[in-house]
Amino acid sequence: MTHETESNTSNTTSLQVRVLYVDTDKMGVVHHAAYLRWFEAGRARYMRLRGAKYAAVEDHGIQLPVVEAHLTYHKPARYDDVLTVQVWVSDLGRLQVKFEYKICMGEDILVAGYTRHASINLDGRLTRLPTDVREALAAQESKTEETMV
Amino acid sequence: MTHETESNTSNTTSLQVRVLYVDTDKMGVVHHAAYLRWFEAGRARYMRLRGAKYAAVEDHGIQLPVVEAHLTYHKPARYDDVLTVQVWVSDLGRLQVKFEYKICMGEDILVAGYTRHASINLDGRLTRLPTDVREALAAQESKTEETMV
Amino acid sequence: MTHETESNTSNTTSLQVRVLYVDTDKMGVVHHAAYLRWFEAGRARYMRLRGAKYAAVEDHGIQLPVVEAHLTYHKPARYDDVLTVQVWVSDLGRLQVKFEYKICMGEDILVAGYTRHASINLDGRLTRLPTDVREALAAQESKTEETMV
Amino acid sequence: MTHETESNTSNTTSLQVRVLYVDTDKMGVVHHAAYLRWFEAGRARYMRLRGAKYAAVEDHGIQLPVVEAHLTYHKPARYDDVLTVQVWVSDLGRLQVKFEYKICMGEDILVAGYTRHASINLDGRLTRLPTDVREALAAQESKTEETMV
Repeated sequence: MTHETESNTSNTTSLQVRVLYVDTDKMGVVHHAAYLRWFEAGRARYMRLRGAKYAAVEDHGIQLPVVEAHLTYHKPARYDDVLTVQVWVSDLGRLQVKFEYKICMGEDILVAGYTRHASINLDGRLTRLPTDVREALAAQESKTEETMV
Repeated sequence: MTHETESNTSNTTSLQVRVLYVDTDKMGVVHHAAYLRWFEAGRARYMRLRGAKYAAVEDHGIQLPVVEAHLTYHKPARYDDVLTVQVWVSDLGRLQVKFEYKICMGEDILVAGYTRHASINLDGRLTRLPTDVREALAAQESKTEETMV
Repeated sequence: MTHETESNTSNTTSLQVRVLYVDTDKMGVVHHAAYLRWFEAGRARYMRLRGAKYAAVEDHGIQLPVVEAHLTYHKPARYDDVLTVQVWVSDLGRLQVKFEYKICMGEDILVAGYTRHASINLDGRLTRLPTDVREALAAQESKTEETMV
Repeated sequence: MTHETESNTSNTTSLQVRVLYVDTDKMGVVHHAAYLRWFEAGRARYMRLRGAKYAAVEDHGIQLPVVEAHLTYHKPARYDDVLTVQVWVSDLGRLQVKFEYKICMGEDILVAGYTRHASINLDGRLTRLPTDVREALAAQESKTEETMV
């Protein structure tokens, strides 16, 4: 599968998360909204490992709000499951960036999706992604990986 | 606009919600994940006003988990804004149902989206939507509208 | 009971909320963290109905962050339950205010609690509550009650 | 300080968490409700490292719902901060257990609190904590610590 291949390159960052009680609902599985949190955690880590820490991007007057989100739910996750969040950039333009995600448990893809982000300045206007941010978004993970969550 | 028209028919249910502090993030606007909560609130109300209260559907051994969600974010909502959630069914099959949503403030559409739900039984298997649930999902709002949140 | 009496005076504001799926957890009941959302919704309404809308307070450079929260959980709430949030001010100082809450279903008190808020300015320093905010916090509900959520 | 001492014994478990955007609010800091999530994450880890994994406890028909929660907020946490959650058991009875928490950044205690949990069976009745669960709750961390989140 194309997707599988894509996400196994070094352009993909992985993060492990553990399902908490607060993430579940009365159906006994993870509530569909909880995955957006893990997408965000994966995305922040992706940027951090490439030297484009989102907090630093903001310090330069650039914000990357979500302008589109899509999720497909294939299998449920349950309490205490340890999930792997895989994240990569699948489209990088002058004014926007698209992240793709797979949330897996073992071999199973539980949830897949993407978020598209506009590059805006502090006035809320579309603005070109700074060159260093673009380069970081397109980069491989840096060698000096931290072990932080 | 087609959408506008669709959502103003009597097949649309509206709900008003007020933005809380907890819904906002440090960008000063509503966090993108918060809208899934309001989609859910609107969907529950849609079903309730047609006599297909989701709790009652579950009592009959049918669950309607979200299998796909899509959101587009057009304009930000802010703290204390009063938003209107418009909900309607745009596709009703034997095994699934699709809800569409618009979250508006005044004339502005802030967020639009849809969720697709599979009909499954308690074993997690796809199962036909019961006739009365299908009929309710396709119905107009009942006359005896409650004024509840 | 003292509490009952207190909360039934005209210094108490009530709000109704309906339990969503996202508020529940795999125990089949409302997750304990969800009640802080409803405390906040009740508190915002309390202030709004006395002309001290929190958004307006902030516009004057005053913030009221939570410095202490306490909750006792007596009985569980379940999906689709309609709960009544009762809120009143039980302590009003020069530099802080304490709100108390009861979340009820019918005659039953499900959750009780309080939050204590410091009055700070934009530099994060303790600052006297402006007189008009203090007066509003101590006031009865205004006559012109809105019907909004 | 007594607390400091207590929490630095081997009866304390630590967990690191990173603040996400979704945890913040328009005040630019972490919303007060977000800490209950981290309390829960710390508590689950505490139990896991003593062989009393909460999921396993539930498999034996015991649930430990929160019956009381208390939080004091000393200093704000901000986006991307890495926080340390310290958890220990401060009271262990036949029918209940009390966990205490400190959420720190460096030397600073940002938030402190506790949660009290009743031991109930599947019918919702108070029931004695099973001996092995009690022993695990009172135990030191096991040697074979996993590195998982």
